[in-house]
Amino acid sequence: MIKIAICGGSGYTGAELLRILSGHPEVEITAVTSEKSAGKRVTDLFPHLHKYSRLVYEPLDKEKILNKADVFFMALPHAASQEAVDYFFKKGKKVIDLSADFRLSDAAVYEEWYKTPHNYADTLKIAVYGLPELYREKIKHSSLIANPGCYPTSAILGLYPAIKEGIIDIDNIIIDSKSGTSGAGRKADTAFSYCEVNEGFKAYGIAVHRHTPEIEQELSGIAGEKITVNFTPHLVPMDRGIISTMYGRIREKSLKKAETAEIISVYKKYYDAEPFVNVLDEGVYPNAKNVRGSNFVEIGLKVNKRTNTLIVVSAIDNLVKGASGQAVQNMNIMTGIKETTSLESLAVFP
Amino acid sequence: MIKIAICGGSGYTGAELLRILSGHPEVEITAVTSEKSAGKRVTDLFPHLHKYSRLVYEPLDKEKILNKADVFFMALPHAASQEAVDYFFKKGKKVIDLSADFRLSDAAVYEEWYKTPHNYADTLKIAVYGLPELYREKIKHSSLIANPGCYPTSAILGLYPAIKEGIIDIDNIIIDSKSGTSGAGRKADTAFSYCEVNEGFKAYGIAVHRHTPEIEQELSGIAGEKITVNFTPHLVPMDRGIISTMYGRIREKSLKKAETAEIISVYKKYYDAEPFVNVLDEGVYPNAKNVRGSNFVEIGLKVNKRTNTLIVVSAIDNLVKGASGQAVQNMNIMTGIKETTSLESLAVFP
Amino acid sequence: MIKIAICGGSGYTGAELLRILSGHPEVEITAVTSEKSAGKRVTDLFPHLHKYSRLVYEPLDKEKILNKADVFFMALPHAASQEAVDYFFKKGKKVIDLSADFRLSDAAVYEEWYKTPHNYADTLKIAVYGLPELYREKIKHSSLIANPGCYPTSAILGLYPAIKEGIIDIDNIIIDSKSGTSGAGRKADTAFSYCEVNEGFKAYGIAVHRHTPEIEQELSGIAGEKITVNFTPHLVPMDRGIISTMYGRIREKSLKKAETAEIISVYKKYYDAEPFVNVLDEGVYPNAKNVRGSNFVEIGLKVNKRTNTLIVVSAIDNLVKGASGQAVQNMNIMTGIKETTSLESLAVFP
Amino acid sequence: MIKIAICGGSGYTGAELLRILSGHPEVEITAVTSEKSAGKRVTDLFPHLHKYSRLVYEPLDKEKILNKADVFFMALPHAASQEAVDYFFKKGKKVIDLSADFRLSDAAVYEEWYKTPHNYADTLKIAVYGLPELYREKIKHSSLIANPGCYPTSAILGLYPAIKEGIIDIDNIIIDSKSGTSGAGRKADTAFSYCEVNEGFKAYGIAVHRHTPEIEQELSGIAGEKITVNFTPHLVPMDRGIISTMYGRIREKSLKKAETAEIISVYKKYYDAEPFVNVLDEGVYPNAKNVRGSNFVEIGLKVNKRTNTLIVVSAIDNLVKGASGQAVQNMNIMTGIKETTSLESLAVFP
Repeated sequence: MIKIAICGGSGYTGAELLRILSGHPEVEITAVTSEKSAGKRVTDLFPHLHKYSRLVYEPLDKEKILNKADVFFMALPHAASQEAVDYFFKKGKKVIDLSADFRLSDAAVYEEWYKTPHNYADTLKIAVYGLPELYREKIKHSSLIANPGCYPTSAILGLYPAIKEGIIDIDNIIIDSKSGTSGAGRKADTAFSYCEVNEGFKAYGIAVHRHTPEIEQELSGIAGEKITVNFTPHLVPMDRGIISTMYGRIREKSLKKAETAEIISVYKKYYDAEPFVNVLDEGVYPNAKNVRGSNFVEIGLKVNKRTNTLIVVSAIDNLVKGASGQAVQNMNIMTGIKETTSLESLAVFP
Repeated sequence: MIKIAICGGSGYTGAELLRILSGHPEVEITAVTSEKSAGKRVTDLFPHLHKYSRLVYEPLDKEKILNKADVFFMALPHAASQEAVDYFFKKGKKVIDLSADFRLSDAAVYEEWYKTPHNYADTLKIAVYGLPELYREKIKHSSLIANPGCYPTSAILGLYPAIKEGIIDIDNIIIDSKSGTSGAGRKADTAFSYCEVNEGFKAYGIAVHRHTPEIEQELSGIAGEKITVNFTPHLVPMDRGIISTMYGRIREKSLKKAETAEIISVYKKYYDAEPFVNVLDEGVYPNAKNVRGSNFVEIGLKVNKRTNTLIVVSAIDNLVKGASGQAVQNMNIMTGIKETTSLESLAVFP
Repeated sequence: MIKIAICGGSGYTGAELLRILSGHPEVEITAVTSEKSAGKRVTDLFPHLHKYSRLVYEPLDKEKILNKADVFFMALPHAASQEAVDYFFKKGKKVIDLSADFRLSDAAVYEEWYKTPHNYADTLKIAVYGLPELYREKIKHSSLIANPGCYPTSAILGLYPAIKEGIIDIDNIIIDSKSGTSGAGRKADTAFSYCEVNEGFKAYGIAVHRHTPEIEQELSGIAGEKITVNFTPHLVPMDRGIISTMYGRIREKSLKKAETAEIISVYKKYYDAEPFVNVLDEGVYPNAKNVRGSNFVEIGLKVNKRTNTLIVVSAIDNLVKGASGQAVQNMNIMTGIKETTSLESLAVFP
Repeated sequence: MIKIAICGGSGYTGAELLRILSGHPEVEITAVTSEKSAGKRVTDLFPHLHKYSRLVYEPLDKEKILNKADVFFMALPHAASQEAVDYFFKKGKKVIDLSADFRLSDAAVYEEWYKTPHNYADTLKIAVYGLPELYREKIKHSSLIANPGCYPTSAILGLYPAIKEGIIDIDNIIIDSKSGTSGAGRKADTAFSYCEVNEGFKAYGIAVHRHTPEIEQELSGIAGEKITVNFTPHLVPMDRGIISTMYGRIREKSLKKAETAEIISVYKKYYDAEPFVNVLDEGVYPNAKNVRGSNFVEIGLKVNKRTNTLIVVSAIDNLVKGASGQAVQNMNIMTGIKETTSLESLAVFP
């Protein structure tokens, strides 16, 4: 049995790790930390996790926790994660960091967008961006995974084949994303109270959201040249799910073969062997509801011939493929466990 | 591998059977029927069930389907179920009927409340009411299970120890239940359209709901004398979940020991060995959200000393413990598979 | 023009007062207070109140605000309200207190349930409980109104004719209430965050909710003898609305004439002249959605002949008839303005 | 008193007309039609409209209804509207058509997108597109108003100043819109049932939605040259509201002055005198919840300097400013009543 520690286990991603791992036959949870909730049982905070009725939050005492586990899931807030990640990694542990601290390979970019210094630029260089569909081989041999952000996961998987194949222009990509409210985390904040969110819909962080450089880094990597995108997140009155609607101009030279069916077949080729990515047939579009509670991704495609634009829509569950599910997928890959273990549950619909 | 047929597989309970069974290691689905959707793939109706992309609905041709399966889940509408259930049962198959057709042991009561004749009174006598917490031994040796209704499951499990132990008077029990909208099934009906249900809340079927005699039959069986209840269902703007709030006067002779803590300990004794029933500690009450997508039941208790009343609150997921999950639980028991197989997933929260 | 001050205007009831009064032809808002938001514009907190773009929150400086207004709406938290209410009232102003501080005529009962002393027992005696359907004449001549609680409004209006006419026994009344989330107020509290409330349903405060003595006081007054009730509130995933489902045993002597139609006609007689109470026809039940955003009340009735029980269901908007709308109704009555002024808007449906 | 007939009054827009007009001091409803619900009272379908308890649906018998009213609101389905609109108009009545039948000035475009012939091309030429912010003077002198579609209202008002002032390129405009579910109308359709819509989010009609040519017609008119747009509608799990997020490249020559604050001041100048359009300050973005139940529009703006893109976000209530409220606004203008009469209610929040 692989021993697992979850550092920062009192939020939604921590709870979701516990939920997903509760069905995993090859792991056991040996520690879960929380500063605020130290001494409380997991079930005091999350009654639905009743299988963990004896698991108690402890403070994150690095020395004390070090020998308790083989794999460390780090679900700490951004910035707070850096030091602990570095510590466990350097002590030879496998670390999967769900914060943003090791996602941006350029520390200067991190500092610009997160307004905080990065003190582990060397470790940063070693971290592997944990998107298995792009980096499976690297993940296999890595001990430090920067688990992708939720919006970036939906955007990158949606645009990957179109950019890689040169189907769309890279200089005018628009990513209009919509997220359920769990993306904001579990916290006391009037802005995310029921009566403020319910029956409302709004854009936020226009042009300044921190997932922008992460998306740009990965899309640029795919394209082999620098991509700058318009990324607009919106808040949807639902618990889980991200839908990203993406627009890219069909490249002049691709126009002739730019039929919806054609592009769908390109995408299917890219994702055929992927256990968690479903490219939908023509005329069918993703629905956040079809993936909720699951690690699956839906991708739908349409060419607008009147405007020579490719519209890609992707759907994920932000807490699963957008966070904890992908983290478990990375753990499976890193530890040689079958990649889909404990991740095959279908969506809970309705 | 046990071969499974699902008759009436185009509704929510059918889809939920498929979802739950998708993770079951000892079964395979060999047939799924639907008259309206015959010829369509399961994924045409339910994209989230993509593991069944090759499974196609067929019409319910009893003779044709008979030899395809060992266990038949019948998710047909009430009345429509009778004949097919009788047929497969008499042909020696194991049958689990999710309709109401074999739940009421007295055909006359069935006919009074369902306004339709019961043509299989003999088979009715043989059917076992599939509530494992009450009838596990009978289920084990039965080939015909009447799977309980959703409201009755929540009410009976909530009141069972209180009635059995003579804690409450039986002549003034009130069951005030609240259900998510999936209880109404998947159908085109303005009354259940989003804009009618959302941001609304209402009682319906007051004093006339068909689950009333089912609840009364089982509570009477527990008490050993006839019980008549007030049962009021309400429609909640949420997908899944039933909360039943139940009121019973503490019996004169029980008054002395009628402390909340005392009654909780009685309940814990009753349900201690039950894999799916969680009796909550004092001061903690059930939440539909804590069981959604899972087969678990939450029960909370409170004695109102000012009025000498026991208030019991229970929570289930109407599609799981209230329908398809319980049906799989019954199948596991009937076939000698470990009872909890494929049913241990924790709730998807949030 | 009547000059209005709103003390405690940064919560939902304060905002709702502003919304309702924005269409009132005979008033002007001259002051709105908030300690936390002093200096901010109303529209900084509530963009939908854009008609008040020049109205700025000020701290509650009693002396300073005294001469600014003729009528004072007090929307302060319980306990915090006492002193200011007493002050403005004794200075000769008309005061409508939306807190619970002047609702319970017996200071000892207040202190028992609210766990805080009542320092103005003399003023308490003078306050009139502001339920126009019961106390219109008193309100007309009063300068101090204790505006009823939301749950009590729904319960008292629902039970008033049944108790007054001796239709039901008074010793076993059950009030099972369900409220939208705005009843919890506007605050940063994880328990009321979107992801905790949405897709959930739960009971809370069973047997101990503070609205219990308020309901009992008024029902006892109607009956002419002491009534103790079971009151259970629940939290519904919707913004606004309260549905109370109430159960009372039909009195022995009333049994003969206890037909649903008969009782409906009694209720219609009681409420015929009431501008805001609609008694529904047989077979039609209230829906929170039918009253949302409006000051109207819906009441539905059903006799369960099998159990000799009267079931009454009432629906109100907790922020309107359950708070700010009723407050404006009281103001209209107290000031000789037509009672329905600014309160006739129909519900926003869907 | 102006006499009003509503043809097609059993849907949400018909009910919304009744709701809004219930507070209008200068009109009376003299007829409301419905084929399916003929003979039923309005309150049988819409209990919240209890002020109309004596109003009964009648079939649309044009001759019979002609003399009953001065103004005809036509809320019939597309195509079904043509003949009746033409009839009442030619009989000298004032007609406001809420269908799409008279919105597209080019009958050929109508026929292409609506797949049905237009038989009144002459009348079509006379119809005025009823967007007061663009065509107030024409509306004043017209007797036939094509009331704008909901999505087009949100898009056109959002882009009008930017296009008119030449701030953005016209050849790559993207309109990503999100609508509440009431936009689908009141109908029995599984796709819009609660359990399908709730907790889901999806795009639909990508590149083929019928509001596309309507948007293009009006934007082209503003620009003085042909504009083709990418328009993608999405379905949001909420009752009411449209948010449109729009993207336009800043024109080369506008780049220097393309600061957010600058463009906001341009927009404020355009809409300063408009009673229903609120341009928000920098850093504040629209929320569907801030306009629900009201006729107001919120517009927010942001320049993304990294991509030289203007992002405009607009919010309306699809049933009010997107349909019935705008229709009443048009009626007020056409009949010389103060434009804002009966339309000044603030949004119902929360």
